[in-house]
Amino acid sequence: MSLMRTIFYLSDSTGLTAETLGRSLVEQFPDLQIREKIIPFISDISSAQAAVKEIQLAAQNDGQPPILFSTLVDNDLRDIIAQSPGILLDFVETFIGRLEVELKMESSNKIGHRHDSESYEKYMARMEALNYALRNDDGSTIQDYDQADIILIGASRTGKTPTCLYLAMHFGILAANYPLTPDDLENTRLPEPLKSHKAKLFGLHITAERLQKIRQERRPNSTYASLSQCQFEVRQTEALFRDQKIPFTTTTDRSVEELASTILHHSKVNRRL
Amino acid sequence: MSLMRTIFYLSDSTGLTAETLGRSLVEQFPDLQIREKIIPFISDISSAQAAVKEIQLAAQNDGQPPILFSTLVDNDLRDIIAQSPGILLDFVETFIGRLEVELKMESSNKIGHRHDSESYEKYMARMEALNYALRNDDGSTIQDYDQADIILIGASRTGKTPTCLYLAMHFGILAANYPLTPDDLENTRLPEPLKSHKAKLFGLHITAERLQKIRQERRPNSTYASLSQCQFEVRQTEALFRDQKIPFTTTTDRSVEELASTILHHSKVNRRL
Repeated sequence: MSLMRTIFYLSDSTGLTAETLGRSLVEQFPDLQIREKIIPFISDISSAQAAVKEIQLAAQNDGQPPILFSTLVDNDLRDIIAQSPGILLDFVETFIGRLEVELKMESSNKIGHRHDSESYEKYMARMEALNYALRNDDGSTIQDYDQADIILIGASRTGKTPTCLYLAMHFGILAANYPLTPDDLENTRLPEPLKSHKAKLFGLHITAERLQKIRQERRPNSTYASLSQCQFEVRQTEALFRDQKIPFTTTTDRSVEELASTILHHSKVNRRL
Repeated sequence: MSLMRTIFYLSDSTGLTAETLGRSLVEQFPDLQIREKIIPFISDISSAQAAVKEIQLAAQNDGQPPILFSTLVDNDLRDIIAQSPGILLDFVETFIGRLEVELKMESSNKIGHRHDSESYEKYMARMEALNYALRNDDGSTIQDYDQADIILIGASRTGKTPTCLYLAMHFGILAANYPLTPDDLENTRLPEPLKSHKAKLFGLHITAERLQKIRQERRPNSTYASLSQCQFEVRQTEALFRDQKIPFTTTTDRSVEELASTILHHSKVNRRL
């Protein structure tokens, strides 16, 4: 029997939640070969019926039933999907009943926009944070550090920019970043512009080998990308973090989501969204 | 009886999946008053025990059991949490058994890094896309449009920048954006730099009222922020999209996640991540 399965992520909204949870479940079966298909915005009978057709087709092609991960809220739409030949793992209905019992309340069973909708206030907070991150990227300005929630520091190419943008986008955090240059790293003192903001600093660290690999793509065969230079900067950066008692975390092999969550968890920064 | 409940999102990783799905379930009970607490990175016995202590404390304070949404994968850690006084809604165990039966395979029951870990290739693809978005923001350069996967167009302040950054961050898509200026909008022809890239264009639309509100915060009481100016630009933008047959979507009241998913769904752009 073939191990290939088609996995459907079905949602009345973006499908991101169904996809993230569904994929983490599927990844518990490393030998499984999968084809993935996201069907977002299933919000009426005709889009539900169109999804059923796709599921039927995949079932025929694979010779076995697709796996369906669903966050559909509306009972009628769910009933349509349930008539397809897929194996339905329902991330909403499975828990709503239990919550109704526990909370002694009835659920609204409404699609609404839920977490995906955005108020004007939330939009503006997010925009403010994104603009702050863009304005305060890579030490480009330092006069706005009073407003910063957090200032990421680290050597060039340690992941400061994407992490700041993620913190802004997802949590509305005002995140600046300041690059530690080779000059800064001649000793383990804090660069002048950072001294009065010590409580806001958070360090990003990386292995010299990974840093070398990243820099090599940017400026091949430069001193900047040499292993000895990367080793020097990495060693000195860590010494600075330790001497100055600045919390830090490694970025090697870690996604920006994981970095942002780690920073939130290990700093006193509060989410604004 | 108080309607206040403490909601815990428990995870061996970032907790973002537990939070997103858990919150969408909780939002089905609009009368429920909640306090939320995310506990990420529960990866060993001591961090699981610390979580149990927090849950006990919340149970005492509330006078009723907290609701626990968990994506913990490890059975031993889950068993520790299960001994707490919370109501455990388990997003992993609930479905793993069913998947094992359906797939006729055993799950690995491993924490690993799963979807949060990041390969070097994925990191570089994401960085390339973010750098592309930053370089090609707001029409700042147009010579790189050949490489673009998509080019968002719209009047000033319609959400182009955050949407491009989101498409880059989450899907590795090379997304440029080009602002339609009042001059561009005197007629419904495409601005010269866009003409040879028509197939890549996607429009962002907004209501005049929302646009006015957003611009008012940026440049209070300017012509730019006047309702008549916003009405003109919004009307002309839509006419241009329709005349030129450019797909477009509204940004009013929609989150950047929703916008990005909508664009993916309605364009032929493929995710690179």
